[in-house]
Amino acid sequence: MTTRKQLDEAGPRLKATFLLGTLKHKRSGGDFSHTEVLSELVIEQLREYNVACEIVRLADYDIKPGVKSNMGAGDEWPGIQQKVLASDILVFATPIWWGNHSSLMQRAIERLDELHTELRETGKSRLTNKVGGIVITGEEDGEQHVTGNISNFLLSIGVTLPPLCAVSHLGSYTRATKKSLHKKLRAKKETADAAAKMARNLVFFARFLRKNAIPDT
Amino acid sequence: MTTRKQLDEAGPRLKATFLLGTLKHKRSGGDFSHTEVLSELVIEQLREYNVACEIVRLADYDIKPGVKSNMGAGDEWPGIQQKVLASDILVFATPIWWGNHSSLMQRAIERLDELHTELRETGKSRLTNKVGGIVITGEEDGEQHVTGNISNFLLSIGVTLPPLCAVSHLGSYTRATKKSLHKKLRAKKETADAAAKMARNLVFFARFLRKNAIPDT
Amino acid sequence: MTTRKQLDEAGPRLKATFLLGTLKHKRSGGDFSHTEVLSELVIEQLREYNVACEIVRLADYDIKPGVKSNMGAGDEWPGIQQKVLASDILVFATPIWWGNHSSLMQRAIERLDELHTELRETGKSRLTNKVGGIVITGEEDGEQHVTGNISNFLLSIGVTLPPLCAVSHLGSYTRATKKSLHKKLRAKKETADAAAKMARNLVFFARFLRKNAIPDT
Amino acid sequence: MTTRKQLDEAGPRLKATFLLGTLKHKRSGGDFSHTEVLSELVIEQLREYNVACEIVRLADYDIKPGVKSNMGAGDEWPGIQQKVLASDILVFATPIWWGNHSSLMQRAIERLDELHTELRETGKSRLTNKVGGIVITGEEDGEQHVTGNISNFLLSIGVTLPPLCAVSHLGSYTRATKKSLHKKLRAKKETADAAAKMARNLVFFARFLRKNAIPDT
Repeated sequence: MTTRKQLDEAGPRLKATFLLGTLKHKRSGGDFSHTEVLSELVIEQLREYNVACEIVRLADYDIKPGVKSNMGAGDEWPGIQQKVLASDILVFATPIWWGNHSSLMQRAIERLDELHTELRETGKSRLTNKVGGIVITGEEDGEQHVTGNISNFLLSIGVTLPPLCAVSHLGSYTRATKKSLHKKLRAKKETADAAAKMARNLVFFARFLRKNAIPDT
Repeated sequence: MTTRKQLDEAGPRLKATFLLGTLKHKRSGGDFSHTEVLSELVIEQLREYNVACEIVRLADYDIKPGVKSNMGAGDEWPGIQQKVLASDILVFATPIWWGNHSSLMQRAIERLDELHTELRETGKSRLTNKVGGIVITGEEDGEQHVTGNISNFLLSIGVTLPPLCAVSHLGSYTRATKKSLHKKLRAKKETADAAAKMARNLVFFARFLRKNAIPDT
Repeated sequence: MTTRKQLDEAGPRLKATFLLGTLKHKRSGGDFSHTEVLSELVIEQLREYNVACEIVRLADYDIKPGVKSNMGAGDEWPGIQQKVLASDILVFATPIWWGNHSSLMQRAIERLDELHTELRETGKSRLTNKVGGIVITGEEDGEQHVTGNISNFLLSIGVTLPPLCAVSHLGSYTRATKKSLHKKLRAKKETADAAAKMARNLVFFARFLRKNAIPDT
Repeated sequence: MTTRKQLDEAGPRLKATFLLGTLKHKRSGGDFSHTEVLSELVIEQLREYNVACEIVRLADYDIKPGVKSNMGAGDEWPGIQQKVLASDILVFATPIWWGNHSSLMQRAIERLDELHTELRETGKSRLTNKVGGIVITGEEDGEQHVTGNISNFLLSIGVTLPPLCAVSHLGSYTRATKKSLHKKLRAKKETADAAAKMARNLVFFARFLRKNAIPDT
């Protein structure tokens, strides 16, 4: 059985990119993102495995509507796609609004569509050998539906999904601060365990795929 | 039984607003929206009942991310919400991308969320006595899933859904022009029938609700 | 505005059928169905409007797999379909298992498929002028997704869905008795309100449709 | 890069179990299952890698409603679960009815729920180190939604999902025979390719996991 130590020694530093679909941009002041807080919980775990992690907060970018990798002047998606392509681990992190992932998460999915067109035409995906994860927060309902929708997309576009690769937290915390929510989630055994297992499995498969590419014929 | 004639005489002109979630804005030149073409097929039918119809192409507006009715400076949603509130019939028209409605359709749903908060707090919805419809286009798959997701939202926020209130068209027409697609859809008996029944049922319930408000106690 | 009194006087007694998709059959002894308890809460409200209500517990019948109205020897669905066709109000009541309605609820949907085939071939549905409702219970997640899926089916097959026609309760009550859960749900303002509004709206539209059939041309 | 040859040499014979959710049982005579035909296409590919494959046609068994691994007298699920637990590769094969997997597929999901309870209580899943696949057929719509729902379940219960692990075929073939459909699907490049890639990826991960168990701490 592979131990955490062995995972650490398995190669150069892994890179994880979190696409954060919160509707709140950084300039929105006091308001913090619950999804970001839960993502940070996973990131703490990934760092135990020496993974370099970056959160890309989609609301802070001008991402044009469309289904091409580059939608022209002013479009800030191409830079984000560079980060996606350079990652070993790709995490979709989104709040739930009316049972679905956020409009910003959906925007990212639409903008990745050209990679699927490429896969369909060439039989090869530039996302092959990447491992996917999912982080979800919401007020009360929808976690499994959103997990399913995002899983369908990631699998179709060439990403591997390890077991227990999703973590979620449902609940309404209108009076929470970023700090108090962090503390609350870390203290909740179920959530902390889920984050730990998710990180462990993401790393296990990412290290394997780095050394053993999926055959492409 | 109510005839089309009786429907026409039943009162002042009804108003229908189509929120069009295509990713293509008007400035995108040669590209046309399949969803707009299918919406226009429904509109032709609604006009038979003397309904005043307007398509609001979301891609042409700057709609800020968020879940409030007004997200501040530069936000063009408030004007759209005025149109929504002034309508008898509200149609969500969207392409499918990866099994879901578009990011722009989701944006509209998020921005209507404050009306649901109001409903939860006061027990009353400003969308009560409105009738909802759904128009969907896609390349190959997802129509029923999207219909379900939008239906769940509309029902929860106070809108009535008549039977057969959705019309969809799946198919890939990379070489179609707007004119040829129009002709194609109008000629397809199944689609033309669905549009006709959808219009008939939307009008039937809209006229009823205008004269008979749903009791609010 | 129509008052509750006016609704009562509006005509002969309405009939509501609840298709109950719990996995527990009556012989299973001490075990009770949470979904049945929530359905009874709605039934209490419907009786205020003099509606005759019946719960059909699917688990107590031998419903053969298939997509025809009658699957031959030993099939007990035909009797259930008679009840469905004789109703003004049709409620789908189901627990959630892994984000979806139960296998028994899905079985009922499959067995109603022949009515849709009939609608497609003749343009007419034998479910037209019926009003639909949804009752959902689950441990933690999935209510909106299930509401959407069932709504898509009911609308497609000719049923009208009033606003707020769904009620749900999520929560794990391993030590509840039938009596204690009843009390708990009735005492929970949000659930009691939802059941009351659902009943009010179902009756409002059922009475209307009984006197004013949807035009079928 | 791993070649097909290397995969073949990687160890003892892998075992794949297909849970087939068609509504048609074997006794139903002339009627054949489209989902079975598509499953056989995948099986042909798996056999290239020397995988021992078995289709369990759920409609031929008496599988009691419930969420336990054993529902008592007459329940034939326990024997099926033995096969599931003895497999390296587990494929869910289902037709689509009204946007969802079949009632028989849902029944299997419900009956596997106790394994999830076990996972929640002990932190360990007896399905860990198994690889999952999905086969879907339908008349026209719903493949991605069903893929998402089943993916959510499989990931949550401990199964690994390789990229491109689903194959589907939508279309209405009322006059097809089993033989003609087989020929048709095998001749359709897109379907044949999808089956080949699915088999390749299932085997790639199954061989890896047999030699390298996911760490369980």
